[in-house]
Amino acid sequence: MSTINAYIETHKERFLEELFQLISIPSISSDPKHKESMVKTANAVKELLLSSGADSAEVRQTAGNPVVTGEKIVDEKYPTILIYGHYDVQPAEPLELWVSDPFKPEIRDGKIFARGADDDKGQFFIQLKSFEALAKTNNLKCNVKFLIEGEEEIGSPSLPEFCKKNKELLKADIILVSDTTLLGLDKPSITVGLRGITYYDIEVTGPNRDLHSGLFGGAVANPINKLAELINKLIDDKNRITIPGFYDDVLFIDETERNELARAPFDVDAYNKSLGIPIGVGEDGYTTMERTGIRPSLDVCGIWGGFSGDGAKTVLPSKAYAKVSMRLVPNQDPITIDKLFIDYVESIKPKGVQVKVAPLHSGKGYVSPLDSVAYKAASLAMEKSFGIKPVPTRSGGSIPIVSAFEEILGIKTILMGFGLESDAIHSPNENFPLENFYKGLETVPLFYKYFSELMG
Amino acid sequence: MSTINAYIETHKERFLEELFQLISIPSISSDPKHKESMVKTANAVKELLLSSGADSAEVRQTAGNPVVTGEKIVDEKYPTILIYGHYDVQPAEPLELWVSDPFKPEIRDGKIFARGADDDKGQFFIQLKSFEALAKTNNLKCNVKFLIEGEEEIGSPSLPEFCKKNKELLKADIILVSDTTLLGLDKPSITVGLRGITYYDIEVTGPNRDLHSGLFGGAVANPINKLAELINKLIDDKNRITIPGFYDDVLFIDETERNELARAPFDVDAYNKSLGIPIGVGEDGYTTMERTGIRPSLDVCGIWGGFSGDGAKTVLPSKAYAKVSMRLVPNQDPITIDKLFIDYVESIKPKGVQVKVAPLHSGKGYVSPLDSVAYKAASLAMEKSFGIKPVPTRSGGSIPIVSAFEEILGIKTILMGFGLESDAIHSPNENFPLENFYKGLETVPLFYKYFSELMG
Repeated sequence: MSTINAYIETHKERFLEELFQLISIPSISSDPKHKESMVKTANAVKELLLSSGADSAEVRQTAGNPVVTGEKIVDEKYPTILIYGHYDVQPAEPLELWVSDPFKPEIRDGKIFARGADDDKGQFFIQLKSFEALAKTNNLKCNVKFLIEGEEEIGSPSLPEFCKKNKELLKADIILVSDTTLLGLDKPSITVGLRGITYYDIEVTGPNRDLHSGLFGGAVANPINKLAELINKLIDDKNRITIPGFYDDVLFIDETERNELARAPFDVDAYNKSLGIPIGVGEDGYTTMERTGIRPSLDVCGIWGGFSGDGAKTVLPSKAYAKVSMRLVPNQDPITIDKLFIDYVESIKPKGVQVKVAPLHSGKGYVSPLDSVAYKAASLAMEKSFGIKPVPTRSGGSIPIVSAFEEILGIKTILMGFGLESDAIHSPNENFPLENFYKGLETVPLFYKYFSELMG
Repeated sequence: MSTINAYIETHKERFLEELFQLISIPSISSDPKHKESMVKTANAVKELLLSSGADSAEVRQTAGNPVVTGEKIVDEKYPTILIYGHYDVQPAEPLELWVSDPFKPEIRDGKIFARGADDDKGQFFIQLKSFEALAKTNNLKCNVKFLIEGEEEIGSPSLPEFCKKNKELLKADIILVSDTTLLGLDKPSITVGLRGITYYDIEVTGPNRDLHSGLFGGAVANPINKLAELINKLIDDKNRITIPGFYDDVLFIDETERNELARAPFDVDAYNKSLGIPIGVGEDGYTTMERTGIRPSLDVCGIWGGFSGDGAKTVLPSKAYAKVSMRLVPNQDPITIDKLFIDYVESIKPKGVQVKVAPLHSGKGYVSPLDSVAYKAASLAMEKSFGIKPVPTRSGGSIPIVSAFEEILGIKTILMGFGLESDAIHSPNENFPLENFYKGLETVPLFYKYFSELMG
């Protein structure tokens, strides 16, 4: 590995420069204003694939944002690794909470600060530059393919169709993804479970115009009060989701497995302190790790209506809105949940207002087997680079496409991420510690080595 | 009255031009950005008082926006009418819902459309121009004083102090105000009751930063969900306010008085239809008119937190906010209610979050006696100009300063307003029908006539 590590050492400044250029394009997939940035970023990714050692690379059109593919086929007899990543990012709002411009990456305290610094431009760069180091030093004992999309943050609406149409192009033995977290640099971990997701826009309409809260207050249903009533009915006082049938497909996890998962080091006081919360709040009977790892959840991600300026505008607004997201566990079907949710909202709809529910996107959860070649290779690689054997963990996050890969392409995914929970992905001041970036560059080439050895 | 009416007829186009100029200054008292507009508007009001016939007029400083005073003393022996009005307006947001610019008044369908067209620049102009017609035709049999403030829409914080310091200046027999509504042009009415008001900013804080709803959802209290829980606990399923002690000081209104108030013509189907609501919703056991007239109410006037853009940002936000207003009935003390509300919120504060409550402004309710000279004069004036005897009504709105006038100056107020509920005050597309404006100009001089006769 020494020539590989020497190559990385020599080029690591350039790697950062290239990453910063990619980050500086605001590829926010949820905002139609950034359409042009999406195309620009896709083209930049294609150029990066070619310059990093791919034999070919293409920007491919979809119904939405383009997908970038590329490959280097070293030998037909070698196993093939398909690298998946995404070049789109979350919106940066609220902008006023950022210390530096979200699209002008800056290094402070040994961390890169920018939207996408971790999720997923920074993490994808670990894969890209590990590949480059292997390719340029002629150490590739695997074929490598790339599939980099631009719609992950909006639920990958175009990718399943793309996969269906390009099964041959994407044929591989394993999909490798860096888009998840480690418990810590001193607590290496591999994500073996992901939650699924559903997401809804809710609109509550009361009167046909904003009303004076004095002249009408008390006689006309207020859509904000009614939205609060509705939201409040979604979770009971044991913090369980109240939608009838919601838990029907949740797999029972026995004590043995719960004990296994509880082995992951976790300090609840440090967790609460780092979040600035007095106490964790979640479903009765489960630990903090279980609440995000093996149990579903429901969060209002946004709410708005009426007057939000300074002072005392006395209005009974016409409309109120909320964005509601649920995280599902493996075996819960988002389509079934959509129906249950919409029916339930209809059944608890407050009097005097209209309620509309629009599903935005969804994805299934995923569980990865611990006895696979890929998991073993990942575990060996991390044990070598971190000096500690990693533990399997279940992430509360969702990468909906991972279960779609299995269904459509028949390929399992290994989630070897190098982020930290403190990286503030999806939040102001997203960051990625340089140490994690370099540790990733040290680990991924080892995965290639062990994977090809174990497959060979 | 014929010379007075002839004067109005001759000058009515100019009256509108002058009103439009006043409206075009965006005197939004709740927004510090508009400080300069407040001073500009106060000066414009002073000039209007002088040009309309006042002997003197002054812009007087307060701790907040200036107060404009003026007077015409015809004869020390005559009774004195003090005209109160306000030159400040509500914010115009949401701007995108206005058909025309809120500060460029436009006449469509016989109505003036603009912020302040009714509340209160348009209505104040009825008083101002009635005074002008009487003064310029030498028909004034009363002394007239003016008190026009610039903080009504933020609860008149500086006016009580101003009144305390200027009791002699403001000495009068009656205060006359046009800042309320008629049931309709064919249903004249005089407002004899006003509700009081309290208003609060609420801030709920969960984690110290926005979190990824997947990685943390289910384990960390979500401030939006918790704010919804809190709001939902403020009103019970009979639509009664749940704050302990809240109703203690609400006066019991007996069947006789309820029957008297029920005489005001009111068509509940037309009301619901005009508001586009399927059904009115309010406190069990009370009619729509009673719910706004004689019962208190609680409305969330604004709510916000998390992501409100297009698409599906999966965030568990750090903070959520709401603006909550209560309308009180006469005899409820806002200071007592502040304490009850803050204590109650503290007692129901959800676990895992911090809650801050900041009172913004408040005012007491008001009831005007039906057997006073001023009420009789107003009733006779309206019966003459409308051809129908007006009914007394109780408005759900609040003019906090009215009860302060009685406490500080010892003067009763007569609320002779000419607006309609459909004027959309405080809403987009606020408007004031020209017919109402002219009907007001026909009525107010008659009030002067009957008032001086009955007092003389």
